[in-house]
Amino acid sequence: MAETNADEIFREFKEHSIAEFFKKNRQMLGYSGMSRSLVTVVHEYLTNSLDACEEANILPDIDVRIDMTGESKYRVTVADNGPGIPKGYIGKALATILAGTKFHRYMQQRGQQGIGASGCTLFAQITTGKPVRATSYTGTGKPYSCSISVDTTRNKPVVTDFAELDSAPRGLRVEGEFAEVKYEGGDHGVYEYLRRTALSNPHAQIRFTDPSGQESVFLRAVDKTPARPKAIKPHPLGLTVNDLIDFAHVSQSRRISSMLIDAFSRVSQDKVKELASVATDVDFGKNPRALTWAEAESLVKAFRSVKWIAPDATSVIPIGESQVETAIKNILNPEFMNVVERRPKVFRGGVPFIVEAAVSYGGNSGKKTSEGYEGSVLRFANRVPLLFDSGSCAITSATRDIDWKRYNIDIETQPVSIFVNVSSVYIPYSGVGKEAIAQEDEIIDEIKLAVMDAARGVQRYISGKIHVSHETSKYRMMMRYANQLSMDLGSLTGEKSEAIKKDLEKLIAKYYPRAKVGGAADQDGTQEGQAQEEADRAQDSVN
Amino acid sequence: MAETNADEIFREFKEHSIAEFFKKNRQMLGYSGMSRSLVTVVHEYLTNSLDACEEANILPDIDVRIDMTGESKYRVTVADNGPGIPKGYIGKALATILAGTKFHRYMQQRGQQGIGASGCTLFAQITTGKPVRATSYTGTGKPYSCSISVDTTRNKPVVTDFAELDSAPRGLRVEGEFAEVKYEGGDHGVYEYLRRTALSNPHAQIRFTDPSGQESVFLRAVDKTPARPKAIKPHPLGLTVNDLIDFAHVSQSRRISSMLIDAFSRVSQDKVKELASVATDVDFGKNPRALTWAEAESLVKAFRSVKWIAPDATSVIPIGESQVETAIKNILNPEFMNVVERRPKVFRGGVPFIVEAAVSYGGNSGKKTSEGYEGSVLRFANRVPLLFDSGSCAITSATRDIDWKRYNIDIETQPVSIFVNVSSVYIPYSGVGKEAIAQEDEIIDEIKLAVMDAARGVQRYISGKIHVSHETSKYRMMMRYANQLSMDLGSLTGEKSEAIKKDLEKLIAKYYPRAKVGGAADQDGTQEGQAQEEADRAQDSVN
Repeated sequence: MAETNADEIFREFKEHSIAEFFKKNRQMLGYSGMSRSLVTVVHEYLTNSLDACEEANILPDIDVRIDMTGESKYRVTVADNGPGIPKGYIGKALATILAGTKFHRYMQQRGQQGIGASGCTLFAQITTGKPVRATSYTGTGKPYSCSISVDTTRNKPVVTDFAELDSAPRGLRVEGEFAEVKYEGGDHGVYEYLRRTALSNPHAQIRFTDPSGQESVFLRAVDKTPARPKAIKPHPLGLTVNDLIDFAHVSQSRRISSMLIDAFSRVSQDKVKELASVATDVDFGKNPRALTWAEAESLVKAFRSVKWIAPDATSVIPIGESQVETAIKNILNPEFMNVVERRPKVFRGGVPFIVEAAVSYGGNSGKKTSEGYEGSVLRFANRVPLLFDSGSCAITSATRDIDWKRYNIDIETQPVSIFVNVSSVYIPYSGVGKEAIAQEDEIIDEIKLAVMDAARGVQRYISGKIHVSHETSKYRMMMRYANQLSMDLGSLTGEKSEAIKKDLEKLIAKYYPRAKVGGAADQDGTQEGQAQEEADRAQDSVN
Repeated sequence: MAETNADEIFREFKEHSIAEFFKKNRQMLGYSGMSRSLVTVVHEYLTNSLDACEEANILPDIDVRIDMTGESKYRVTVADNGPGIPKGYIGKALATILAGTKFHRYMQQRGQQGIGASGCTLFAQITTGKPVRATSYTGTGKPYSCSISVDTTRNKPVVTDFAELDSAPRGLRVEGEFAEVKYEGGDHGVYEYLRRTALSNPHAQIRFTDPSGQESVFLRAVDKTPARPKAIKPHPLGLTVNDLIDFAHVSQSRRISSMLIDAFSRVSQDKVKELASVATDVDFGKNPRALTWAEAESLVKAFRSVKWIAPDATSVIPIGESQVETAIKNILNPEFMNVVERRPKVFRGGVPFIVEAAVSYGGNSGKKTSEGYEGSVLRFANRVPLLFDSGSCAITSATRDIDWKRYNIDIETQPVSIFVNVSSVYIPYSGVGKEAIAQEDEIIDEIKLAVMDAARGVQRYISGKIHVSHETSKYRMMMRYANQLSMDLGSLTGEKSEAIKKDLEKLIAKYYPRAKVGGAADQDGTQEGQAQEEADRAQDSVN
């Protein structure tokens, strides 16, 4: 066969839009598998609604409705009471991939890509040929509704059937019809997704109508909007040389010195002087737009050689210990739990993040199996439940690395739930579908510490349970024996066997005080567990 | 806190380029972790070189060189003898994400996205601030070299320092400097990546110079370019309604009937008649550009109700049984192996794919550990080794699902390598980084069958090994006993103990013919294994 030359080959050269790319590779957005695809749709719309309400400081009231419209075909409707979308933005917000208010802000949000909702529109149109329908009212002007699809060749919105309405509730309502999907129960279904969302968003009320018409309400457990995360300036320790160049080249400041103070957090006049004494090859009076790679490199080296106040942790808002506790009580109703909120840490030098972890035991914790129970790991990133791709997630690696025996926990057989929420201005997802946190060492280590900390708190309780269960069975055995013995002694001595039995029973109860007959003993075990836990944690903070 | 309204929120609305997206989320392209990032660079360049040579029908001769240029900083140079890149395309080919010759062709290729090489350029510039340098000669015109970087805001190339050269070898040479990387050995390093590439591309010669200056050559094992995969027309069974609409709306055919024959494979005049008798609501004489969703839906239903000849399998080119065997001999040099090439199958209705699998035992198979050996799984997609994200890969799920005990294989302790290559016109990767095949049931099932088939072939050999080892130890025990016995008998009977011993030894050897004393027995075991294997396979093809 003859060789082919380059000119022939390059006749085929073309450019493609990101919309075309995801149309061909929809599995990368989470649209693979019929059940998972449906969860992905609900996930994208719900995430956007929660973010919008949070940004507008509104307590979210969200209706999710799924109707079956044909074979493997469902209509999904999500309506929120959020701020709504101004009509000039509705097309791009729902049908331009990589457009939105979130991608460029250094701020903790559920969504951070500007891909999700447009991905849903794309998925609707490639499976049913139909646009999605949006109805919105922002509180000013007129409510409106319209149909939206994606022009995939250009990654641009196509808005049709626009109509102004006389009235509509404030917020956004999106309705789309999707095929190649399936409504399923179980651990990876929509209901479980909503249950977990309620768990990590106790301030939200979510009403769900499933395809059979069955309605469920996840009640609001906390009547307070979460603290509003601030958009922050990056910390110098988190900057790469390239980041610094990027900031410098668009800076409005006249000098490198003022640029550093304006663009980044924790940089003071004094700090600049200190940096100048280290990075002696950099002219701090120079225009930042002329900063060279070598100078930026020298500055980044200087950043790493001086002492800094840690990044501003107010940019990261965890759910909060008491709220996690309320939510877990509400939804898992465990016998016992321990919730831990760790202090802010940083990864990649300067990106702040906070890990919260809880371990709960009993009630609806864990998973029921045909043989009893098994533990379950509930993964969250910025309060969003992660249901898929657990194999490539930092939370999975961290929990797998823990030596659970040390905490008397048997993940394989006990009714245990492990809850982990990672909050950050930037979550390094491993894929565009945002179902797993990349396995970065600093994040894995911190999750491990948080989970071990939480496990330590339930350890004594579980030991107590094991102890109680041993004592109870010994107690029961002795009691059976006491019955026989009192009758034998009665007939031997002529005394009343009833009286002998009572004495024996008292004696036995005295020797097995924790046996589970009344319940007080159980309580006792718990208290001891808590005291021990506090002692452990006190020791931790010393270390 | 007061509510914020939508107009305020949407002041932050922006659009972003795909280059900005990957700049922020480089872990999604495989740039996470220092060692993995370096492998990703080599992988992208090498993949492109192999594809280019294959497309031009040239036996690839590729030089890979890695030099350390600073702390966590390396220069990577990949030079091939391929067709080269015409100067008008070099910028876009190396610095526009989603541009190339591959994305839109329905054809088996290693790359299929148009992201890889541009991702390298992006990674070089965000870690070292430097463009990559390309030198190319296509055989016509003048050779040239130039520097290339990405304008991330617009996803456009920036070409500088362009120079025509007097001479340069035909092909492409790319050189980039990357920081935040590390050269490491082991299972996830560059050397292993190249070794596996050689394994799945026996027609390629790869010369590698590592940062210490050490040179290795992976010699060409097969002097023949692989059969050239054809770009094929899609099979009707693989079309979604949306695909059909897309084809119809850009079709140059006058009628739906001729469009079906022109655009898709296996559609004949007779087939159109048959389809028309099923999809009675579709006017086959109508202009395809006016095809509605409902009509397309009706056509797709009709496609699924008639009988078809399977998709054209010549579009999928496996490595080939004998070539896999040669390559494995060359590189793993096993005691025994079994290679299986399955017949073409389809997933998603009509996308053809072929699975090849091999199981090898001994030699350099498996992995040496401190305690002995463990099995290893070598994953490939269109001949490209997949080193990372094994947890989310269809090949991993398939091999994990197999009951290895049935094949006398202990993955945990034996020197076993499992080789799997999936070839297709479209590999459904789970992520943009293309390190794992999405876990689609049809693919997993087929991989399982292929691996089990391959395992069946080594099963008898391994049983034989176990049998031989048992017989050998019994034989040795009896021989020791024979020694003592012959002396005792000698002194009892007065006969020569030497003669008695010889007789006894003959007797023992007769009872344990497979004991490993000479080596012939071993050979025998193998042969029996092979015979049994052939019988098994014969039975398979009957089923």
